[in-house]
Amino acid sequence: MKRLFILAAAALFLCGTANAQEALWSRTAITSPEVNQDGTVTFRYFAPKAMSVQVTGDCIAVRGTNAEGKEVTLNRANMKEGKGGIWEYTTEVLEPELYKYNFIVDGLTTVDPSNVYVNRDVASVFNIFIVSKEKGDKGWLYQANDVPHGNVSKVWYDSPTLKMKRRMTVYTPAGYVGGKDKYPVMYLLHGAGGDEEAWPTLGRAAQIMDNLIATGKAKPMIVVMTNGYPAIPAAPGEWQAGMYKPGMSGTPGGQPVASMQESFPDVVNYIDKNYRTIAKKSGRAICGLSMGGGHTFMISKEYPTMFDYIGLFSAAANLHKTEMRDGRRVNLEEYDPQTEAQLAALFAAKPKLYWIGIGETDFLYNGNKEIRGYFDSKGYPYEYYESPEGHIWRNWRIYLSVFAQKLF
Amino acid sequence: MKRLFILAAAALFLCGTANAQEALWSRTAITSPEVNQDGTVTFRYFAPKAMSVQVTGDCIAVRGTNAEGKEVTLNRANMKEGKGGIWEYTTEVLEPELYKYNFIVDGLTTVDPSNVYVNRDVASVFNIFIVSKEKGDKGWLYQANDVPHGNVSKVWYDSPTLKMKRRMTVYTPAGYVGGKDKYPVMYLLHGAGGDEEAWPTLGRAAQIMDNLIATGKAKPMIVVMTNGYPAIPAAPGEWQAGMYKPGMSGTPGGQPVASMQESFPDVVNYIDKNYRTIAKKSGRAICGLSMGGGHTFMISKEYPTMFDYIGLFSAAANLHKTEMRDGRRVNLEEYDPQTEAQLAALFAAKPKLYWIGIGETDFLYNGNKEIRGYFDSKGYPYEYYESPEGHIWRNWRIYLSVFAQKLF
Repeated sequence: MKRLFILAAAALFLCGTANAQEALWSRTAITSPEVNQDGTVTFRYFAPKAMSVQVTGDCIAVRGTNAEGKEVTLNRANMKEGKGGIWEYTTEVLEPELYKYNFIVDGLTTVDPSNVYVNRDVASVFNIFIVSKEKGDKGWLYQANDVPHGNVSKVWYDSPTLKMKRRMTVYTPAGYVGGKDKYPVMYLLHGAGGDEEAWPTLGRAAQIMDNLIATGKAKPMIVVMTNGYPAIPAAPGEWQAGMYKPGMSGTPGGQPVASMQESFPDVVNYIDKNYRTIAKKSGRAICGLSMGGGHTFMISKEYPTMFDYIGLFSAAANLHKTEMRDGRRVNLEEYDPQTEAQLAALFAAKPKLYWIGIGETDFLYNGNKEIRGYFDSKGYPYEYYESPEGHIWRNWRIYLSVFAQKLF
Repeated sequence: MKRLFILAAAALFLCGTANAQEALWSRTAITSPEVNQDGTVTFRYFAPKAMSVQVTGDCIAVRGTNAEGKEVTLNRANMKEGKGGIWEYTTEVLEPELYKYNFIVDGLTTVDPSNVYVNRDVASVFNIFIVSKEKGDKGWLYQANDVPHGNVSKVWYDSPTLKMKRRMTVYTPAGYVGGKDKYPVMYLLHGAGGDEEAWPTLGRAAQIMDNLIATGKAKPMIVVMTNGYPAIPAAPGEWQAGMYKPGMSGTPGGQPVASMQESFPDVVNYIDKNYRTIAKKSGRAICGLSMGGGHTFMISKEYPTMFDYIGLFSAAANLHKTEMRDGRRVNLEEYDPQTEAQLAALFAAKPKLYWIGIGETDFLYNGNKEIRGYFDSKGYPYEYYESPEGHIWRNWRIYLSVFAQKLF
């Protein structure tokens, strides 16, 4: 009876406020997006006064003409106004994936008010949804399933090198709490403009690890997601700089007192001290995307006996000496001798896996090709994974999923 | 030099993609909201084709007339179109507070594309910003300051009573990790439509605790934020029901196998087993808002020796017997004898604090007044805190801030 009272109280509360909340968004209850039985997805938006409503995102692929009249595939489609001012668009059949989209209403980009699942990428905010057809497909891998879940923590650690407390995200696998086993650790680094929230949100790291571990495809491991801007302690809004607009340079922060690679042992030391880890080379992996791939490249060669598994995801990595010319840093033709010496030391220490993944249209493709050529010329062993498309989260989720299965 | 290379790579990346991301939102870089030196706040929105743009939220108070022609205060203001299609509105001087707002563009409610700080309340999404004038004011209390930060974890625990693993948010204060001290625990419960994400986001619980603890106003404590819907394991999107639209009833879930109060010892047992707690009455507090205030009322009287500190925030609590009439549960005139007996047992166990907070315009004001009257008639000691306004998060953040200072 007490339980029923609470239901009654909830119902009362619903009457009092839910209408107001619905009214905040629209006069009509709308389901959007709707994943249909046939595998298509329908978007809906209530806008009786709008002149045009479009949906844009990686779930849209329509043939159209560009400004030069050339026929191309566009990721933007016109929605059609139907009964009651509700605009609608239904996609083609979509493959299993996590998709992102926005609406464009009379030229202005907005989020879908019927979909509370919103992600941030640097300073952009958009909606997401997942299509999954069967257990084990990409959509399944990225969604929360009925499997044991690991814990995800925002952890403030001390970085003596950077002279500040810093924030990171730590995933501990199901079974960690209350257990006695020691676990290997994957250090997972974000790209430019990102922070310690990037892999847990855009990268679906916890869901991917939960699902891979539950199906026996990856070993249970701790995953440590750091902040790659050593000038600042944490993601936007999470430290004393307040609710500033995020940028690609991790501002505000000024110059760090040390670099990411100089300070990285602080992270490893903290994790080894405060978690039950396999605190040696065979129990450590490091990987990262774009700028974080560059960090991975540098940290792994700086500390050649720290990690047995190294993963470069669309990495911003470079072999060359550089110099300033007209205020810009440019590559010289010759390789950087310190980089060459460090790589030689790293491969002399025989890491179990050096893994390079990149998309065929990635703007860093040629830089990675040069690194592979260099490794080939030196006889440095590595695994290579090439995917369609470019410098996007769809690829980085795939690389994490593939790389994690090869560890420990 | 390696560090500089990374900066160059970041700059390259910026050129490649940041324009595209800016273009996603607008053709012009806009700062919105802007907290001005004089304490006013300016909102801006780029919409050259719009006919009308308004800003609505608890930061807006303008005099206007309602549908009946009566002069009232409205929380909605017309923005004015200026140069380059940028609409603008500047508020009156705002007091220190965390504020929420949306834009209404030609009648459609949307979020501010220049502000990535977005909160969800049930199925509504809106922007937030904070105004703070000096250390110690409400804005300061709700923002991330340069103080030691506690960790915030999403923890999956076992509930044998509910026969499922469930998700909760656990705050451990700065100094917990790596230390040896035992800590008291505050259990902090959400309201109808909420979940284990409500207090950490809308309630700013971690920031409030960090700031109160850092200034010596609250004792260091663990804060446990559960999910108040025993039929489901976790917040929307975090379990196998997928990315459903949140509702006021915590759907989908069906009937739980046990109630919140029946299952609550599972939470306490898990926390006492896996954290360094002061595992006795004097080391435990429980409090909650609205439905969670009802849960607090029931749990505290069900287990009279479990908590020494009890806090009802705008509580949906009831003394009466109820019965079904025409399909609705209604109060009978007489009090529920089990409730009376349990309250007698609770106060016989002499809790150190029974605290009741409510707003003067809250729709649950009279229900709480009746409970106070009953307590007075029985000689049950309690503290009462009445605030302006009603059933809103502004009040619940205040109640948490006041209550937390009285604990342990």
